[in-house]
Amino acid sequence: MKNLVGACMFGQSGGPTSVINSSAAGVFCEALKQKNITEVYGAAHGIKGILNEEFYVINEEDPKELELMKYTPSSALGSVRYKLKNYEDDPTDYNRLLEVFKKYNIRYFFYNGGNDSMDTCNKVSKFMKNSGYDCNVIGVPKTIDNDLYGTDHCPGYGSAAKYIATTLMEINLDAKVYDTGLVCVIEVMGRNAGWLTAAAALAGYKGLGADLIYLPEIPFDVDKFINDVKGVCAKNGNKCIAVVSEGIKTKEGKYVGEFTASSTDLFGHAQLGGVGAMLANIVKEKLGVKTRAIEFSLMQRCGAHLASKVDVEEAFEAGAAAVRFAVDGETDKMVIFERQPSKDYKMKPVLMPIEQAANTEKTVPLNWITDNGTGLSQEFIDYALPLIQGDAKAPLEDGLPRFAKLKKVLVNKK
Amino acid sequence: MKNLVGACMFGQSGGPTSVINSSAAGVFCEALKQKNITEVYGAAHGIKGILNEEFYVINEEDPKELELMKYTPSSALGSVRYKLKNYEDDPTDYNRLLEVFKKYNIRYFFYNGGNDSMDTCNKVSKFMKNSGYDCNVIGVPKTIDNDLYGTDHCPGYGSAAKYIATTLMEINLDAKVYDTGLVCVIEVMGRNAGWLTAAAALAGYKGLGADLIYLPEIPFDVDKFINDVKGVCAKNGNKCIAVVSEGIKTKEGKYVGEFTASSTDLFGHAQLGGVGAMLANIVKEKLGVKTRAIEFSLMQRCGAHLASKVDVEEAFEAGAAAVRFAVDGETDKMVIFERQPSKDYKMKPVLMPIEQAANTEKTVPLNWITDNGTGLSQEFIDYALPLIQGDAKAPLEDGLPRFAKLKKVLVNKK
Repeated sequence: MKNLVGACMFGQSGGPTSVINSSAAGVFCEALKQKNITEVYGAAHGIKGILNEEFYVINEEDPKELELMKYTPSSALGSVRYKLKNYEDDPTDYNRLLEVFKKYNIRYFFYNGGNDSMDTCNKVSKFMKNSGYDCNVIGVPKTIDNDLYGTDHCPGYGSAAKYIATTLMEINLDAKVYDTGLVCVIEVMGRNAGWLTAAAALAGYKGLGADLIYLPEIPFDVDKFINDVKGVCAKNGNKCIAVVSEGIKTKEGKYVGEFTASSTDLFGHAQLGGVGAMLANIVKEKLGVKTRAIEFSLMQRCGAHLASKVDVEEAFEAGAAAVRFAVDGETDKMVIFERQPSKDYKMKPVLMPIEQAANTEKTVPLNWITDNGTGLSQEFIDYALPLIQGDAKAPLEDGLPRFAKLKKVLVNKK
Repeated sequence: MKNLVGACMFGQSGGPTSVINSSAAGVFCEALKQKNITEVYGAAHGIKGILNEEFYVINEEDPKELELMKYTPSSALGSVRYKLKNYEDDPTDYNRLLEVFKKYNIRYFFYNGGNDSMDTCNKVSKFMKNSGYDCNVIGVPKTIDNDLYGTDHCPGYGSAAKYIATTLMEINLDAKVYDTGLVCVIEVMGRNAGWLTAAAALAGYKGLGADLIYLPEIPFDVDKFINDVKGVCAKNGNKCIAVVSEGIKTKEGKYVGEFTASSTDLFGHAQLGGVGAMLANIVKEKLGVKTRAIEFSLMQRCGAHLASKVDVEEAFEAGAAAVRFAVDGETDKMVIFERQPSKDYKMKPVLMPIEQAANTEKTVPLNWITDNGTGLSQEFIDYALPLIQGDAKAPLEDGLPRFAKLKKVLVNKK
């Protein structure tokens, strides 16, 4: 536990979310206030930007634009998917990082991302420690997938869940407007954890949800799926809304979506597109009803106009708390959220050893999935509903969002 | 011009929009205030509901729920696609309509929809006139496609345009987040008119739009498209966003999307899905870059959480004005919007003979499309920007929209 004086470096990594920039704003606003932090840097494209000595001087930015980052989706500094090799296999990147850290006297390092990014953060942390270079390293959690171990939930999830639930309610009204049948198959992100797909149940809680929900936690069987749809159609005049995770797998553990990659899928149908499109096609063929496949695609992770206020504020707080913890001497940890045992929803940022976060996936508890495997229990609603509360979005300019515009002054061009 | 006393009937027809219920609210709220209107009915599934004597007694509804209809997407009464035959070919439906109109003393008929619906409205109007049955008939315009003849624009367009522009801005930030290449092909609705696709230019006006925009007004050439994408990629590190209308056609007039319906398209690729997916696939194959196809699907027409305040209010006013005109003795007309020659945007509802609206399509003026055929001029921005101003959405309940809940008391079950 050392109180260090020096510059701080922040990087964004992995898939963007609606609120990853809110965490950045949290880090920047708090760091700019700290006396022990001499300079605030934001890495262009995460760890790659540090390796390439491409990072921005945040002290040069307009505070108003930093405030607007709270409501600006995606990763304003640029993101990266870059896996650091193990030091033993190849020390090149590590030595370069140390060189850059020394050159700019970087004594605080904050990295914002999901499982893979926390693996990077963990490796950097352990390497700096082993090198005897004093640098407090804190991970800031982020992922729409909500699959980080140890934390009650992840910044980014609430807003994505709100997007999915709200949009599903609207689609529910739209898709049922004619007195003729229509089966909608909606595909939601999430390769191994079903948290995002489960958010469809929040729309159901408001009476405008999906008839069937399929998470990757439960092995997917096409024949059962067709039977499920058939059952709903029989009751509801051939109207059915099914929401499937892109990550649904057969009982053999193979992604159902993988069968769509080639021109012919496992059922012999010509194919292109996601698992939703494939399943809609099978329904059409087997049941002879009209179908429509819908993918929430990038919109579910960047739909900041539908961000949850709770999520925006917690994401900011996760970043700000990381800085406060580091300045207080904490290192080698990740910020996590602890739900407080109170009547009203209350969340507290605490710390967890970072190696616990790296590469571990938290999935939806099986006992939160209803017996038929196509719905979520009240426990899930109670868990998720507080996370989607309130609106928080960019101010309008000409009727459109006014997102943050950063100057992005490069450190070596200052 | 007769001042009639009797019941009024309102029906919703064609594809839903974010604000068709706002027009319904306008009709209902105004009709309930009028002394000459004895009863207010809403047809279940448009003209079909009248033929089947299935319509709701709006007088029974809670005024608060009627107010919430302004912010509730889709068609709350149910919609229909039903083409009335010509009277000379088959008078059955017409005779049945007259029977129902007489039974309930329906003296006002309002029909809300696009080209096809106005054809229905026109036929009903002419038939009632020829039958000597006094009934004032007024069409209320509606279509996200914005392709109705005679009116400056259509209720529904502004909100869909706002959805497209806002979402495109967010996708722009998301898709360019890595320092690796990505070509996004986004498919937007609109079979013959490019108004919706053109809305992408509003995002471009804010600096976060598409690199290339393809409207159905300009014949589509796949080789030119690939060359256009290649040119953008060369300049922007293989990053490119192209927005295409679902209705783009070859110079022979065949929908490009039609080639995707079979398992093999005209280029010999295995296919399923829309024209966007097909084009993304061709880009991937020809240019060897990463691609992503995105469809705005139903969301663009039912995304009421992103509705334009101007659109919501104008849609309401179109309905209310229709009632006022009819009570004043007008008939056989459709409400249209006339843009007033003032510095600030101002719109006035006026009337047009309904036969002019039926089955005519208004497309984007060719001189508003830039010379390269992939962009829109400032004239379009000046035209469209006032239509997307302001936010107007349903209040939140549990963090999700509280949409209208109608009692829907059927007339013969009252």
